[in-house]
Amino acid sequence: DLPFTLIAGPCQIESRAHTMEVAGVLARLSRELGIGVIYKSSFDKANRTSASAARGIGMAEGLKILSEVRDVFGLPVLTDVHDAAQCGPVGEVVDVLQIPAFLCRQTDLLLAAGATGKAINVKKGQFLAPWDMKNVAAKIASTGNEKILLCERGASFGYNTLVSDMRSLPIMAETGYPVVFDATHSVQQPGGMGTSSGGERRFAPVLARAALAVGCAAVFIECHPDPDNAPSDGPNMIPLDQMTALVKRLQGFDALAKAP
Amino acid sequence: DLPFTLIAGPCQIESRAHTMEVAGVLARLSRELGIGVIYKSSFDKANRTSASAARGIGMAEGLKILSEVRDVFGLPVLTDVHDAAQCGPVGEVVDVLQIPAFLCRQTDLLLAAGATGKAINVKKGQFLAPWDMKNVAAKIASTGNEKILLCERGASFGYNTLVSDMRSLPIMAETGYPVVFDATHSVQQPGGMGTSSGGERRFAPVLARAALAVGCAAVFIECHPDPDNAPSDGPNMIPLDQMTALVKRLQGFDALAKAP
Amino acid sequence: DLPFTLIAGPCQIESRAHTMEVAGVLARLSRELGIGVIYKSSFDKANRTSASAARGIGMAEGLKILSEVRDVFGLPVLTDVHDAAQCGPVGEVVDVLQIPAFLCRQTDLLLAAGATGKAINVKKGQFLAPWDMKNVAAKIASTGNEKILLCERGASFGYNTLVSDMRSLPIMAETGYPVVFDATHSVQQPGGMGTSSGGERRFAPVLARAALAVGCAAVFIECHPDPDNAPSDGPNMIPLDQMTALVKRLQGFDALAKAP
Amino acid sequence: DLPFTLIAGPCQIESRAHTMEVAGVLARLSRELGIGVIYKSSFDKANRTSASAARGIGMAEGLKILSEVRDVFGLPVLTDVHDAAQCGPVGEVVDVLQIPAFLCRQTDLLLAAGATGKAINVKKGQFLAPWDMKNVAAKIASTGNEKILLCERGASFGYNTLVSDMRSLPIMAETGYPVVFDATHSVQQPGGMGTSSGGERRFAPVLARAALAVGCAAVFIECHPDPDNAPSDGPNMIPLDQMTALVKRLQGFDALAKAP
Repeated sequence: DLPFTLIAGPCQIESRAHTMEVAGVLARLSRELGIGVIYKSSFDKANRTSASAARGIGMAEGLKILSEVRDVFGLPVLTDVHDAAQCGPVGEVVDVLQIPAFLCRQTDLLLAAGATGKAINVKKGQFLAPWDMKNVAAKIASTGNEKILLCERGASFGYNTLVSDMRSLPIMAETGYPVVFDATHSVQQPGGMGTSSGGERRFAPVLARAALAVGCAAVFIECHPDPDNAPSDGPNMIPLDQMTALVKRLQGFDALAKAP
Repeated sequence: DLPFTLIAGPCQIESRAHTMEVAGVLARLSRELGIGVIYKSSFDKANRTSASAARGIGMAEGLKILSEVRDVFGLPVLTDVHDAAQCGPVGEVVDVLQIPAFLCRQTDLLLAAGATGKAINVKKGQFLAPWDMKNVAAKIASTGNEKILLCERGASFGYNTLVSDMRSLPIMAETGYPVVFDATHSVQQPGGMGTSSGGERRFAPVLARAALAVGCAAVFIECHPDPDNAPSDGPNMIPLDQMTALVKRLQGFDALAKAP
Repeated sequence: DLPFTLIAGPCQIESRAHTMEVAGVLARLSRELGIGVIYKSSFDKANRTSASAARGIGMAEGLKILSEVRDVFGLPVLTDVHDAAQCGPVGEVVDVLQIPAFLCRQTDLLLAAGATGKAINVKKGQFLAPWDMKNVAAKIASTGNEKILLCERGASFGYNTLVSDMRSLPIMAETGYPVVFDATHSVQQPGGMGTSSGGERRFAPVLARAALAVGCAAVFIECHPDPDNAPSDGPNMIPLDQMTALVKRLQGFDALAKAP
Repeated sequence: DLPFTLIAGPCQIESRAHTMEVAGVLARLSRELGIGVIYKSSFDKANRTSASAARGIGMAEGLKILSEVRDVFGLPVLTDVHDAAQCGPVGEVVDVLQIPAFLCRQTDLLLAAGATGKAINVKKGQFLAPWDMKNVAAKIASTGNEKILLCERGASFGYNTLVSDMRSLPIMAETGYPVVFDATHSVQQPGGMGTSSGGERRFAPVLARAALAVGCAAVFIECHPDPDNAPSDGPNMIPLDQMTALVKRLQGFDALAKAP
């Protein structure tokens, strides 16, 4: 029943300068609000809607930048892995490896991630029931690594739409592993813009409040200095300058939910 | 941004004595917690899963009992109507007429309910998008009656399952009408027990917390002294003796959500 | 394993002349293709998306016209009922009473319809699992009337969308009652046009073929001389002049599905 | 409008002997019924529900056996790939590489598969709308390889359930690529047995008939001499000795659907 941790950062590592700017703002937010922040950003967008969409800066360059975020700002860092071979090198740099939702049942990836000994944040597949995440967790735990986080990010609800079932938070918590709520991907509209995914940013704070009132260990919020011009996930990311007010508000719901 | 109102009571009017017992407990809860309570109970269950299931006490007898609840305890009362002809007599007794979810697009019923001049609580159909409730409200408003409440009670999600989309609360609030969250029907499993509906009572408080954190004007919670032996909706009703603790908890989330 | 029956006609009884024109075309189609046709049309659209949408010609006038269809063309006629009180008068004129999908669990309506002794076509609610239709049928059968038809017309699939689950046909057939597939309402997009329902007419023949290949006793297809100018259900009705070619094609699939 | 091709075989390559037995039966079926058969079997089940479930025989051994099927029986062979590195070696042996549904948006895998120049059968993700498969196909086509097959295998419908939307076949066909219907995975109940997926075998022929009546280029049916004792997908595979009767029946619907 510790206060919630914030996992935040822009969808992609756009450049060293961009990353350090955002990380600086989030480090200050962490100090000012007294909240643990894990810096999140991706070096590769491996499953964009369209092949012509921006992929990212690459693993080597991306890890160097994330490592600098850690050194300069003292923030733990999180990034996602897409195949088993990436887990080793990524695990040497980051504090948390993230398994993308589409890949949450890929046994080799889960085992390789687990074998790094680092914390693993697994997104629940949009096609998966919350009670089935115990099987996913068991794959990772079979490596002896119990540092597992289970993350709700929406369930398929008809075409091009996700719905957030708040019951999934207590159901996944029954595994004993901390539960994360991903507020910005939950408001995605997959494929909703023809050759890219749409989203409704305005509902991310709504769902984050609901999740914290229900109770969760961490909230995942992608943010960006200029979301409308971001190379990916723009329609659902939160403008960076709104993060302090939002997180402050969320802290109230978290404290209340965890009060005796 | 007034504090939320509680709509509560047992699914059915089982008898005069049973009703007065529950209403007495809820009247005390209202005073002790300083919360407005609307007493809810049905005189007829018009759409049970099975024809052999208990239907209820009937309109004449039911209205007499609800009227007594009002007189004795000073609680406003709510009951549901199933056809246009019931609206007149029901409207003479109750403070709020409720339109069942399956019937939320039946024009004649909506018009007859509106014509009573009483407040109307319309449940959103399990088959309806939240943005389509503006058309439902417009049918009622066409009678000149603007005392409309829009109520979320779950959306169809595969077979025998409902999901509560918390985005529907702000979407329906855009109409300008107060939004109600029905916590106990939202956890129903329609038809899930073969010849009756199942439900998961333990998720009703979870969803109610989420809804109040998101923001709503009223919460609807069916409760019963002995839910496991109730003639209908037993699997999802809240035991009456747990209501005070639950509502107290919910008041915290409501106050926080409505704080400036 | 008799050849399938066609239930067809325009959504609404627009006028005597309009009805007789369509019925004449369908009577000729019946003779030319050697297929049983039940003429379908509604005297009241009781649950339009919007209150300002056209409601229909009314019960008295509508029944007079349907009666004339029967007398002049020898076609059995079907129309839908919306409350218990309508069942008596409607049952005196039509061959088949239809229960709308939203109303498929309203006990009083089902009992009143059953009591007419006429055949009853019950649409499966968009919110109902196919295995739950046995409870609906049992309500009607409790009146001693076993002339029951169970009709698939799509299940809720996210917002403003229906999906046709072809497994529902054999599941409902396990009741022993004939199963109808409603091809034109299954392609509706409920509320999809803001203040009216949309639809994708081009998929109605696709789904009808699928349903007949799976096996069903009747197919329901709304048709109209000029669907794009029809007062209701225009986006999904089939142009009348395409019906002969379509039904001929469907007869092939039906014969094949029922071949030993 | 050529007759449909049958893609068939057991879920896993269990052993050389087992594979040759099944392939022999399917080769005879191909000759007797005059139908093109592509032999399907997997060397690795990379995303089982549980980590302790049988994974398969491995790539090297599996490809040797598939190669022998080709040589001995003259059947083209298909197997699935799970990461980009597998595409090269697999592409040297098989005629068709298959992309699993969960992986259908993994750009690197699609590009590596495309680069083999072999035909690619991409399963549509359970989380994807049919109109979004054009983006998936475009990723493969960007390699210059246009030998693309798009495969429907069910869409998420609530938890632990899939639904087959027959409209997806014509929608995907609008891309110009041949469309495959996977009849046995479409009846899976993902995770439905706690630590493995359930399924309802009896509906596979039902859905296959529907798909052929609608129109498709190939049908995918997993089959096994003893499904109830198979190491994976047992609940939905068709017993091998029922395949001839089933395929014969399906040929009728195919011929009728493709008749002028």
